[in-house]
Amino acid sequence: MIDVCLLGTGGMMPLPNRLLTALLVRYNGKCILIDCGEGTQIAMKKKGLSAKPIDVMCFTHYHADHISGLPGMLLTMGNAERTEPLLMVGPKGLEKVVNSLRTIAPELPFEIKFKEINGDEMSFDLEGMPEFTITAFKVNHNITCYGYTMNLRRQGKFNVEAAQEKGIPRDFWNNLQKGETVTTDDGITYTPDMVLGEERKGIKLTYSTDSRPTDSIVRNAAGSDLFICEGMYGEPDKLQKAKEYKHMTFYEAAKMARDAEVKEMWLTHYSPSLVNPMEFMSDTKKIFPNTIAAKDGRSCTLRFTE
Amino acid sequence: MIDVCLLGTGGMMPLPNRLLTALLVRYNGKCILIDCGEGTQIAMKKKGLSAKPIDVMCFTHYHADHISGLPGMLLTMGNAERTEPLLMVGPKGLEKVVNSLRTIAPELPFEIKFKEINGDEMSFDLEGMPEFTITAFKVNHNITCYGYTMNLRRQGKFNVEAAQEKGIPRDFWNNLQKGETVTTDDGITYTPDMVLGEERKGIKLTYSTDSRPTDSIVRNAAGSDLFICEGMYGEPDKLQKAKEYKHMTFYEAAKMARDAEVKEMWLTHYSPSLVNPMEFMSDTKKIFPNTIAAKDGRSCTLRFTE
Repeated sequence: MIDVCLLGTGGMMPLPNRLLTALLVRYNGKCILIDCGEGTQIAMKKKGLSAKPIDVMCFTHYHADHISGLPGMLLTMGNAERTEPLLMVGPKGLEKVVNSLRTIAPELPFEIKFKEINGDEMSFDLEGMPEFTITAFKVNHNITCYGYTMNLRRQGKFNVEAAQEKGIPRDFWNNLQKGETVTTDDGITYTPDMVLGEERKGIKLTYSTDSRPTDSIVRNAAGSDLFICEGMYGEPDKLQKAKEYKHMTFYEAAKMARDAEVKEMWLTHYSPSLVNPMEFMSDTKKIFPNTIAAKDGRSCTLRFTE
Repeated sequence: MIDVCLLGTGGMMPLPNRLLTALLVRYNGKCILIDCGEGTQIAMKKKGLSAKPIDVMCFTHYHADHISGLPGMLLTMGNAERTEPLLMVGPKGLEKVVNSLRTIAPELPFEIKFKEINGDEMSFDLEGMPEFTITAFKVNHNITCYGYTMNLRRQGKFNVEAAQEKGIPRDFWNNLQKGETVTTDDGITYTPDMVLGEERKGIKLTYSTDSRPTDSIVRNAAGSDLFICEGMYGEPDKLQKAKEYKHMTFYEAAKMARDAEVKEMWLTHYSPSLVNPMEFMSDTKKIFPNTIAAKDGRSCTLRFTE
């Protein structure tokens, strides 16, 4: 299962009751933060979450509302005496931007590793967890910007009868179930495909903000259990503004959710001028019924379905 | 009169109910911000204050909790279509630090002017307001750090009898009252001292945070109407920690307030570990009775006294 918490839902600037858009994802003891604007550490504290165990920080792009909280977050992690290395992932220029911001956070008790995204798409696994893959995909904003999809694969069912028929010793079943190939002392090799059924449906989570609608979003979000997408404007007459500033309206997001056949969509990254997102939900739900106008701190646990 | 708002009262990191220490001072249409940590723009919005009209930003030092909110604040000012130049004042390295942080806020519709503080003390007037002087004075932290005193001078009373005796035409009284020297068409020069009594007591405001107690603080705070001072720790047994990290306890701050003979002191910049500052006020007030354990957003208007 994957725990998801949308820490903030604002765009541009933090407001007293709407902090900047950032996502915290937790899977099997690993903690991933996407974006870290001014006040993201406040949002975490509001939810009772500690900054210390963040393993990976992914950045969509380097506009201030997505990274301005970084120096403070790093220092708070340092003050909590974190020593494990931190992996940062982001568009080209990552190390330069981070080091510029670290002018005011120069001393940290942990190492930062950088993974710059090259090209239109890049995938990587969480260390030691080959079943969990993060994919960054290019979107269309006024600077280079990426969305992120997280895929948790689920292997097929263990076929006890097949294992018995093939005479595989019980001691090896657990390893095979974990997807490991084993070899007996007699030199006989057993592979997982001998006892595992077809890969079952896993869990898919997609996060995309600061973009015009793109094919890359629809393609990468396809079949997501949860699709978190920017909805900068709810007012239909702000479509022109959305085009100009390379953002999108609720309705454009809903069309993508529909085309990508996701299970549920959460809107986020509201313009400060958008006081009450609920006002526009009725029309949005006509396009994609399972749309939710998220509020700060919205959480859920995504589980495997049988 | 001077309007004062202590926007936040926290040190080290912003908390949901205690934002970072920063002070907003307004006098005669001018707006001065001292320090700008992560969330200072949120604190301003909570008080219904706009970032747009800030004329001067003073920094005590470049630890992140005093400047990490700068990129976001500048962008918010820019988004409000501010075009007037902004004056920044701070310790050596100001322009370099600000430009590093502006990696994520490169484009602004207004100019930034820099005034670096040299030496142990530096004074300057607000543009067009010779009666209002800001003095930066060096304190004792683990990096170069300054406190700030603001002095609003008040000229003497206008002596109508003296003006009449000297035969000064009524048309010039207003100018003389404003402190201006005037010359008649006949070449006669009148100076303000001819009609003004001795300079009266003005208004003095002192702000000092992130320091061990110093003579410079006592000297510069002397006679202040309001002295805003860090009180990182309330627990008496944290004196050693205060010494180690170059901060101070409530009691050390109170001793300085007493020695400087200020009217009132507000404590601020509490350690995140200090949950309830009120717990230590009884002992603090034994040293300096007019001490207030400030909370976020504490405001007052300082007025001339007769």
